[in-house]
Amino acid sequence: MLTLILADSELELIPEEMIDDYAVRKNAKSNGKVAREMLLDSNFMHSSIERIFPGESRRRGRPDLVHLFLLTALESIPGKEGNLRVFVHTRNNEVISFNPEVRIPRAYNRFVGLIEDLFRKRKISSGDKVLMSMESKSLESLLDSLGDVRKVLMWPEASISTVSEIIGNDREIAFVIGGFSQGDFRSDVSGLTDRHSIFRDELVVWTVASEIICGYRSKHSDAR
Amino acid sequence: MLTLILADSELELIPEEMIDDYAVRKNAKSNGKVAREMLLDSNFMHSSIERIFPGESRRRGRPDLVHLFLLTALESIPGKEGNLRVFVHTRNNEVISFNPEVRIPRAYNRFVGLIEDLFRKRKISSGDKVLMSMESKSLESLLDSLGDVRKVLMWPEASISTVSEIIGNDREIAFVIGGFSQGDFRSDVSGLTDRHSIFRDELVVWTVASEIICGYRSKHSDAR
Repeated sequence: MLTLILADSELELIPEEMIDDYAVRKNAKSNGKVAREMLLDSNFMHSSIERIFPGESRRRGRPDLVHLFLLTALESIPGKEGNLRVFVHTRNNEVISFNPEVRIPRAYNRFVGLIEDLFRKRKISSGDKVLMSMESKSLESLLDSLGDVRKVLMWPEASISTVSEIIGNDREIAFVIGGFSQGDFRSDVSGLTDRHSIFRDELVVWTVASEIICGYRSKHSDAR
Repeated sequence: MLTLILADSELELIPEEMIDDYAVRKNAKSNGKVAREMLLDSNFMHSSIERIFPGESRRRGRPDLVHLFLLTALESIPGKEGNLRVFVHTRNNEVISFNPEVRIPRAYNRFVGLIEDLFRKRKISSGDKVLMSMESKSLESLLDSLGDVRKVLMWPEASISTVSEIIGNDREIAFVIGGFSQGDFRSDVSGLTDRHSIFRDELVVWTVASEIICGYRSKHSDAR
């Protein structure tokens, strides 16, 4: 089993401090939504974020990265074979778990609606099946809960290897990928000493995910 | 050099027959756009498509698939190394070419705006550089223009091989991937007899693209 963890992803509801911002209220109204139940999205709220949280507008509010990561991971071949487990950890220490049968909406606006629903209900079900659930949990607790499995941190400054070299013969392996486009991990990752990089430049999170997934599959195409 | 062609992709402006549809006009107005300059998008115009083109609403108007394909291909490692060439061919026989330096917007609404611009101007430039250009061309002419390179058609009904087996030792190779989620190629693909499949079930276009890209790279990691 391959495990992918998107860590410190920039997924959060509009923070309390921003609720009264005029542009945020206007945006919510034109979407027929309540501002405090809306996802922070730098694509639409960039200047509001910069106004209320100076210097943070290039980092916060990136549901688009989570969307692209999930579409890449869950629609992959190991994802369809039930050979991949995915977690999304957020900046506010919430962890989202996914049923392999969940179908992530291709359309971004529908994905955002779904995640807003999840923040409200903490769980998305279909009949008896829980498709997605969210709980308060730090990255450290999430990693602890995986038990004795090998945990690799994707770290741009680490020395470069191929995914195949990193995996070696390990079938049970978890990869931690930063879910942000700028800056460093907010969580304490000092315990993660098994660090690797796969390219000389920075890569987007979905490229890192697809490289790991393809590399894992070519090592363990028979894995279940 | 690896070449990826997204063929018969469902990318088109709102067809003339739909321009007078009430819902289409309303949608355009609320976006501050002119209906005949807007992309057809089944995510927002599903019932209008079904009303005007019965039976086609599950296929037509899928800029989202093109977006996900381009983000996967152009942000990949071969994409960044200049070792990948990408073409998007549309249902109306238009072919879009990309400068490897183009940066595809992550945000879907911005991507749609960019492609609408491209349909209007036929070319997107930055200074002296052409980043994207569009010309009238059939899939057949596009394939002819590639010359003597090996051309592989990804075909769900073909026998299954790994990407590595399909590529063999070929450095110069082009893959044709259907850019639609339902039905069959509209273009004549009878000349493409080198057909392969990589999985027992259907895969989304960006998974096919990332499997090919990772497979090519693991064969030719030194390729330039």
